[in-house]
Amino acid sequence: MTQRITIIGVGLIGTSLALAVKRANPAAHIVGIDRDGASLDIAKARGAIDVIGSIKDAAEADVIVLAVPVRQLPQLLTALLPLLSPQTIVIDVGSTKQDVIAAARSAMRERIAQFVPCHPIAGREQHGPAAADAALFEGKKVVITPQAENSAETLAAVGALWETTGATVVSMPAATHDAVFAAVSHLPHMLAFAMVHELASRPNAKTLFEHAASGFRDFTRIASSSPEMWRDIAMNNRESLLREFDAFLARAHAMRELVAASDADALQAFMRVAEEARGYWLSGQYHQFNNDET
Amino acid sequence: MTQRITIIGVGLIGTSLALAVKRANPAAHIVGIDRDGASLDIAKARGAIDVIGSIKDAAEADVIVLAVPVRQLPQLLTALLPLLSPQTIVIDVGSTKQDVIAAARSAMRERIAQFVPCHPIAGREQHGPAAADAALFEGKKVVITPQAENSAETLAAVGALWETTGATVVSMPAATHDAVFAAVSHLPHMLAFAMVHELASRPNAKTLFEHAASGFRDFTRIASSSPEMWRDIAMNNRESLLREFDAFLARAHAMRELVAASDADALQAFMRVAEEARGYWLSGQYHQFNNDET
Repeated sequence: MTQRITIIGVGLIGTSLALAVKRANPAAHIVGIDRDGASLDIAKARGAIDVIGSIKDAAEADVIVLAVPVRQLPQLLTALLPLLSPQTIVIDVGSTKQDVIAAARSAMRERIAQFVPCHPIAGREQHGPAAADAALFEGKKVVITPQAENSAETLAAVGALWETTGATVVSMPAATHDAVFAAVSHLPHMLAFAMVHELASRPNAKTLFEHAASGFRDFTRIASSSPEMWRDIAMNNRESLLREFDAFLARAHAMRELVAASDADALQAFMRVAEEARGYWLSGQYHQFNNDET
Repeated sequence: MTQRITIIGVGLIGTSLALAVKRANPAAHIVGIDRDGASLDIAKARGAIDVIGSIKDAAEADVIVLAVPVRQLPQLLTALLPLLSPQTIVIDVGSTKQDVIAAARSAMRERIAQFVPCHPIAGREQHGPAAADAALFEGKKVVITPQAENSAETLAAVGALWETTGATVVSMPAATHDAVFAAVSHLPHMLAFAMVHELASRPNAKTLFEHAASGFRDFTRIASSSPEMWRDIAMNNRESLLREFDAFLARAHAMRELVAASDADALQAFMRVAEEARGYWLSGQYHQFNNDET
């Protein structure tokens, strides 16, 4: 099974996908494209890509992976369109889906059936091809938000590609995807940035950071993520993210009021719901958990 | 150097301290006291304590370690006082210090010189003697908030005890301690509980948790902490904690407003301050970091 895959954007995700495909299928031919020559050199030196290409080679690919910041997608899709053969499948790896779909539909028009929106739920706070890992997707989920126009064959091919990386493929509507990830990923990133920003803004920031320990380190790990990438995610999933901001701020304020009222019992019960829910989640038994909140 | 140490409360911290002392000084004689017989059995089986004692043995100890929930301290100190020999040093391990000092001064009165407030900055979200570890304090800080009445000898003895565990001892005023840890530890715990509570309260909680990944797992790790313990910390450091709630909620709301205004540049700059500050913190070079915020 020869595969011709073109990776546009050899960052952490693009290069990890290339490494994972190579591991599963050494005969795969992988072309890398990036604005950054140094990243291409690293990806090539690591054996992730066979050749450094340009967008003009797009017609040669079975699958083109758009692994660039989401805001670059419209321009990129527009440039790709006239070069795209009817057999080529185009996928993205963005953390938001409704905005990507809108951009893709606008750019690709009657070729939209060739585009399959994807979101691998994998990453780390380090960026770039040097941090890439063939095992990055192992045991992780990849969400596909199919278009009505996608054929069953196209969706199966994309699913099979992700499965070779060791990931599990899940399908859901794009709106569901964006609401779910605003809650479990996008807002937590915002809050981690806000926490570190707040402390860094204090006159005694040095003293504070000197005494921060492992709890703080883990709570804020995701605040070492790429500001450029998370700016785009926030802008592109703005409506869902604002809903999550408001729900969380109301919840945190309610907790604050329990502290202000010195209501120890209610505060403990509040914490208990969280502690128990997290325990069920970690044990994979969340479906057995019923909280008592009305 | 024989040491006679009585640990009241053989949970994670008390048992870990006993294990660390034993490792450094196998001749140390350690008495364990707890309301929970099963915990005592585990601590004894692990070699952390030599004998199971009772509060009546207090006169025999060089150092008594109060490793119980903070709200039990007043009653415990009152019970200990008539049994306490003038040479015995009493320390606590609580996460808040001004409230502990107030309780100790009220209970111990003219014997307050024998009490040294301590806070080892070490822990994990698992509780109990089974999770204890002789290495728990290695490379960690222990904050001592000395009383004016403490003699230099008493403080030196307490410092030496902690140093045998591999910890570094730091002194600061109790009010500074409480303000610093409200910011870098207590509020992050509250926010982690609030985040998990919020998602657990949703009708689609199961779907949300199914798609939560490693970023969420680390962000909420401290929401698996003991609700009883964190209820006490919140109640006992209420004023500092409320200040931190308000500062954070204002900061997070300001971030929300950047998203609402679609101000991508300002949002990225906001995140960049956090990402850079955390990078300097992790590299141990925070003193070289100057943020531009006015």
